[in-house]
Order: sequence, then structure tokens, then C-alpha cells
Amino acid sequence: MECEVLAIGTELLLGHVVDTNSAWIGQQLALAGISCRYQAKVGDNHERIVDGLQEALSRADAVICCGGLGPTQDDITREAIAEVMGVALRRNADVEARLRERFGGRDVPASNWKQADVPEGASLIMASTGTAPGLVCPVGDKVVYAVPGVPAEMREMVGGAVVPDLVRRSGGQATIRSRFLRVWGVPESKVAEIVAPRLSALEGTPTTIAFLANVAEGVRVRVTTRAAGPGAAAEAERALDREEAELRALLGDAVGGIDDEDLEVVVARLLEGSGLRLAVAESLTGGLVATRLTSVPGASVWFAGGVVSYGSDVKRSLLGVGEGPVVSERAAREMAAGVARLLGADVGLSLTGVAGPEPQDGQPVGTVFVCLSWPPPGQVSALALSGDRRLVRERAATYALDILRHALLARGPALRGS
Amino acid sequence: MECEVLAIGTELLLGHVVDTNSAWIGQQLALAGISCRYQAKVGDNHERIVDGLQEALSRADAVICCGGLGPTQDDITREAIAEVMGVALRRNADVEARLRERFGGRDVPASNWKQADVPEGASLIMASTGTAPGLVCPVGDKVVYAVPGVPAEMREMVGGAVVPDLVRRSGGQATIRSRFLRVWGVPESKVAEIVAPRLSALEGTPTTIAFLANVAEGVRVRVTTRAAGPGAAAEAERALDREEAELRALLGDAVGGIDDEDLEVVVARLLEGSGLRLAVAESLTGGLVATRLTSVPGASVWFAGGVVSYGSDVKRSLLGVGEGPVVSERAAREMAAGVARLLGADVGLSLTGVAGPEPQDGQPVGTVFVCLSWPPPGQVSALALSGDRRLVRERAATYALDILRHALLARGPALRGS
Repeated sequence: MECEVLAIGTELLLGHVVDTNSAWIGQQLALAGISCRYQAKVGDNHERIVDGLQEALSRADAVICCGGLGPTQDDITREAIAEVMGVALRRNADVEARLRERFGGRDVPASNWKQADVPEGASLIMASTGTAPGLVCPVGDKVVYAVPGVPAEMREMVGGAVVPDLVRRSGGQATIRSRFLRVWGVPESKVAEIVAPRLSALEGTPTTIAFLANVAEGVRVRVTTRAAGPGAAAEAERALDREEAELRALLGDAVGGIDDEDLEVVVARLLEGSGLRLAVAESLTGGLVATRLTSVPGASVWFAGGVVSYGSDVKRSLLGVGEGPVVSERAAREMAAGVARLLGADVGLSLTGVAGPEPQDGQPVGTVFVCLSWPPPGQVSALALSGDRRLVRERAATYALDILRHALLARGPALRGS
Repeated sequence: MECEVLAIGTELLLGHVVDTNSAWIGQQLALAGISCRYQAKVGDNHERIVDGLQEALSRADAVICCGGLGPTQDDITREAIAEVMGVALRRNADVEARLRERFGGRDVPASNWKQADVPEGASLIMASTGTAPGLVCPVGDKVVYAVPGVPAEMREMVGGAVVPDLVRRSGGQATIRSRFLRVWGVPESKVAEIVAPRLSALEGTPTTIAFLANVAEGVRVRVTTRAAGPGAAAEAERALDREEAELRALLGDAVGGIDDEDLEVVVARLLEGSGLRLAVAESLTGGLVATRLTSVPGASVWFAGGVVSYGSDVKRSLLGVGEGPVVSERAAREMAAGVARLLGADVGLSLTGVAGPEPQDGQPVGTVFVCLSWPPPGQVSALALSGDRRLVRERAATYALDILRHALLARGPALRGS
């Protein structure tokens, strides 16, 4: 069973509205084991909607159309589907009655009556909200579904009626499940190289691996698998467990979390389990590390606070950084020790460096020193980061958090399960 | 000139990532007067990318492909375009050299080299970040552009190279120009109400007004106008100048900036002109205000630094906050004065409050006190913000920066032009 999605609305093409509906429908189809290989957007134009539907039906067994069921002149999905079906529209008495009820005695605006027009041979999906019913429209042995573009109404109809109907038609219950392994401190290309043996090993199996990379979120390794028949969900979960174990064996501690566990969430869990309290001294990142850490609820247990020592005078007077360049290993070490002492914390983490656009202290843009005051003596990591000011700052913050993660892991296996 | 968009990536179809790139490209095409009637998403599958490209080229003059230029095995856009062009891929020496440089002497991972493969006859779009160049690929008298899926890289290439190339190819028809007025401290619905007379006044003219709202970015009032013929660009700019003056007359100081001038950029300019040096004490925002301020290059001139006083003990020991609740007007006042004193700054700005998920000090989530130590005595703004933890933090930071902006403006007209 193949199902495509056609999102309808000129506002989507103009970028005034981001089409989040198709992504949500794609998720639901995947969870139900229905393959979706193509999604498209067209404007409110009769001919192009008809063309879009016909093309989709030439490739797939089913199409979900989203949008264009409202009461205004540019809502023309019903007409386009009727043309593709080769039938006329007929005013439906049930929908008329619902419209009257919905307007509670007040006159129904003339334009709303078109929402009661239904292509001959189509059946209705009634919804608890909104005025337009969804449509199930047979086209030969294929089917077109029409649902509103309003996300809440769309979700109710797709989840409650469309996906169950597709599963019934597909005669089976294949399940698709995904899991993300979150990797930090290793570039995407290197992750791909390490994981390459698994891609070969999985060839011909229902399990696949893909990569998504993002500066703040690190590399996400996605494992997706498919199973069918009774017990499919449990079978899929077992396949994911097996593959996760294989990947962890290859990637080791570079795997920091699963699914939605961001780096700061993983660090927060490790810190909470350690009983240690952290303080942060930031120069080039200007508070970004503290911001990310405090985005985690309950941070006050393990986070004392931070100093954004932006001016050199603040580094010296408040954190006790001595004479000499402030972008240096020594300054990083003094900042980490200084902030831990100043805030009464067990661990000090510091970042000093050059975010750009100009070099500083004779150091090029991207030079960053990160120091952890614990365990003494503070070890300094010297980084050479690429990118503009924003990227250097984001990369520096991510590296610093990952250095902290590794240090907390290295405290011993007793902490790993915490 | 018709241009379609093909977004490439299985993660888009599975709904793991929402395709915001197509919407942004749609906006840029509209602004440049280039028609975009169809946008589609396909997965990382060679045949289906080739089919998607061929279909798009059968309808349109140009296609922008987004994604699939990375270094991993599932990045196959180059190969698919080469097939559509009917040419081979050749390793490009310039890109190889850039890769070596980017990895700064370290070994370039083997998988990265494929990013130097270029279809014969294609030209390159070099970018300031990222490792993959964009491609301009002629197909008969039509053209396929390939840009990365990473939004920042995509935007740089589409804005800097693809759209200008499309405008050149289209023979420079009408000119469409837009300007954004950045408004803070006034909700979108109120802005719409204030501006309503201009919407009526503009009816029947080539100038239109639209609204875009976003927590961190405030309300953006977009003025768009269109002109044709010789002198079109100058004519369009004059129309924008006239409308900007009309809108400023209605909105007054609520208009803080133009186009890309974020609130922190406006505050930075005002601070620089004032000769004052700022320090920030943050509790619930955890460093977000400092992070936003230090995102502006040259911040060290007017920004001393900040203290993230997350633990109550830090507020008391470091900033001199007295006994009693730390989410209070008094604590905000003491934090602002304390941080200015501690960091030797002229102005202290403080935020204390409840980000959630739990209430604190008997105060509900969303309670925020903001204080500016200058001019003494520190005036405290008490806010009741809606939203979850993330939104409360973002809204608090935006309000605090806007309070600072108004205080700097109120110092006198001599500063307004600075």
C-alpha cells in the first residue's frame, strides 16, 4: 500500500504558512506501516490540483489531500476531486443539517453551503469540530481522501478515519518504528564511516540506517525497521534493540542519548546522579552554555550559576585571571577554578576564545579553550572551530557540554546507569 | 519564469523533520517575482529523485533541489542530477582543496570526498560555511539548482546566488521589494488594529501590508511593493520609504528596527551611542539575555558581562540579595544594583521569575520581575507571561531587552539617531 500526500493552498507555496500537516501525516503513515514516497504542495488552482491528484494516483494506491475544504472562493478541492472521479457534486442533506445546527439558528452564510457539496459516490468523515466534513472518494480501485487544512481537524480525521481505512485496505498491519541514537563530538562523515559495516550488514533486511546532523543537536543516527503480522510492534522493537546494541558497540561513548535526549538533558542526568554542583564561566559563548543547561527543568539542584565574563576586566577582577592574553590555556584554567570558587561549586567549566568577526590576542577566529576545573589539575581542550560567529559560538557550547559529559562518564561505571 | 522546489530526504517524508526550507524558498521566489506553482518532497532514493526532477522540468523552467549533498551514503542528489543531465560526475580540484582546508590538516574522512564530485557542465556555488558547494546544472535550456538542506547554508546560497541567477534568466521583469518594520512590546492583534487605516488606504495600489509574529523576533510588519520599467527599483524604494513613514507615524517608538535588525542589535546600537556599560543578572532566563546581547559583534565595548544567579545562595552571596523570596520586586532591584556594582558597570539589568514547570516562592509560572538599576531608583516591571518553560524564558528575555530599549530612547532625542 502506497499513499501520497497533496497539500493544497497558495499560502503554502508563498511560504506564508509552513506545511506541518504533511510531516504529521507522514509520521502516522509510517507508524501504521503504510509507505509514503512522495508529498507535494499545489496552490488553489483547479487545473493544477487535478493534475497533482492524477499524477499521485498514477504512482500510488491512495492520496490524502489536505486543505481547500473551507467556505471561500479559493476552496476548490471538492470540485477538483469530482473531476478526477468523473462525477458531479451533489448537495448532501446530512451536511446541510449539520451546518444549520452549527450556526445555531443564525443564517448560514451563503458561501458556507458549498461545504455541503459532495462528489457522487464519496462517503463522509464527520468531525467533532469545524464545518467541513472529510471525504473518502473512490477512484477505480484507488482512493482519494480529503481533509481540512486546519491542523486539529486534519489530525482528528486522519488519525480516526483515514489511517484506519488505509490499514483495512492494505489488508495487513505492517508497523514501522524508528529510534534515534544521539551522537556528539564526532563529525557526521566520521560517524558514517564508523557505522558503514552496519549499513552493509543490514542490506536486504527491513532495517535501515540514516543520518541527520545539526550543530546544536549533534549527529542523529536513525534506525528504522518494519514488521508485519501479529506481534509486529514487539518484533520491530526487538529489531531496534538489536541494532542499537550493534551501533553502540561501534560508536561507544559517542552515543550520548536516545530520541529526544538533547546533550544538556544527558549532562543534567549525569550531574544529578553525581551529586556534584556545577558553575560555568563563559567568554565567547556569552551565556549560551548556561542557557542550554538551565533549559532543563530542575537545574537548580546541580547548577549553581554562571559568570559571563565578557570584558577582560571582569575576568581579572571577578575570576582572578592573571596578566597576559585572555584567550589562552592559562586563562581558561583560571576561569574554571575562579568560577567554582566564586559560586561555591564543585566543578567549574570555562570557555574562552574568539567568536569573530575579528581575531583577538593574535588568535584566529574559531580558536577556543575549554577547561574543566575537576578533577584537578584542570585539563584544557584547545579547539579550532569553523564557521561564522553564530556557528563558532554554538559549536563551542556543544563541545564544552560534551567534554563535561565525557568527564562525568569517566568518573566510573556506577554513574552510567544513573 | 516558473521555478519548482524539490526537497530531498526520507526524514521529511517520515515527518522526523518539518520541511521549512521550501516555505522559505517560496517566499524568496515570490519576492523576486518568480512564479512557484509546485513543491514536492521525495526520499533518499535515486530513481524517485530522478523522476521528481524530470516531472518538475516537464512543467517548469527551473528546479531548486534542497538536501542530499552531505557526505553520507544516503546523500545522492549529485548522482541523480548527473543522470538527469545525462553526464558523469567528475572530482573537482577546487572543492577538494576547500575540503582539505576545512579539515585544517587533519585527515579528511573518506566519505567527505564525494562532496567534491560535480556533474560535468555544472558550475559551483561556494558558501562561507559547510563543506558541500551548491550546484547550478544546465539541462537543455532549463536549469536545476542543488543546495544543502542545512537551513543556514541553503539560505545563503538561494539568497546570494540562486534567486539572482533566476532573475537574470527571467530577463528582469517586475521588481518586487519588501521592507520589514520590527515591532516589540505590542501584540500582533494590537499592531493590526493600529495599522488598519493603512490597509484601507493602500487598496488599489501596488503596495501591500502583512504581519508575521514570533516570540523572539516580535511582530514584523511587512510592506511589499511592485514596480516595472526603467527606474523600477528606485520607484519601489520610494514607495517603501513613504509607507514606512506612514507606519512609523502610527506605531511610534514601538517600531524598533528595520529588516534584520533584531532587538539585541537595536539595543546594542543605542548602548554604543550612550557610552554606558551594561551588566546583566539573570535567574529564570539562565543566560539567555547575555547570549542574545553577545551575539552582536563588538559587544565588548558596551557589555561588561553577566551573572547567572541560578541558585538562591549565589543571588545572596554574590549579588547581595537579602533574606526573603528571590522571586520578588525587591530581589530584582537588589540583583540589578548588585550586578552593576560587582562588574563595575553603569547599568544593571536583572530578571527573576518562575519559568516552570513548577511554581516557586508561592508565585505562579510566568511571574517575572525585570529591573533596570538606572536611572536610580530602579523601576521594576512585573510581568505575567504565558506559555511553557521555553516560551516564558524567551518572552522574559524579549521584554527585558525592550524595557532597556525604551529606557535608552527616553534618555533624550540626541541618542535616537545614534
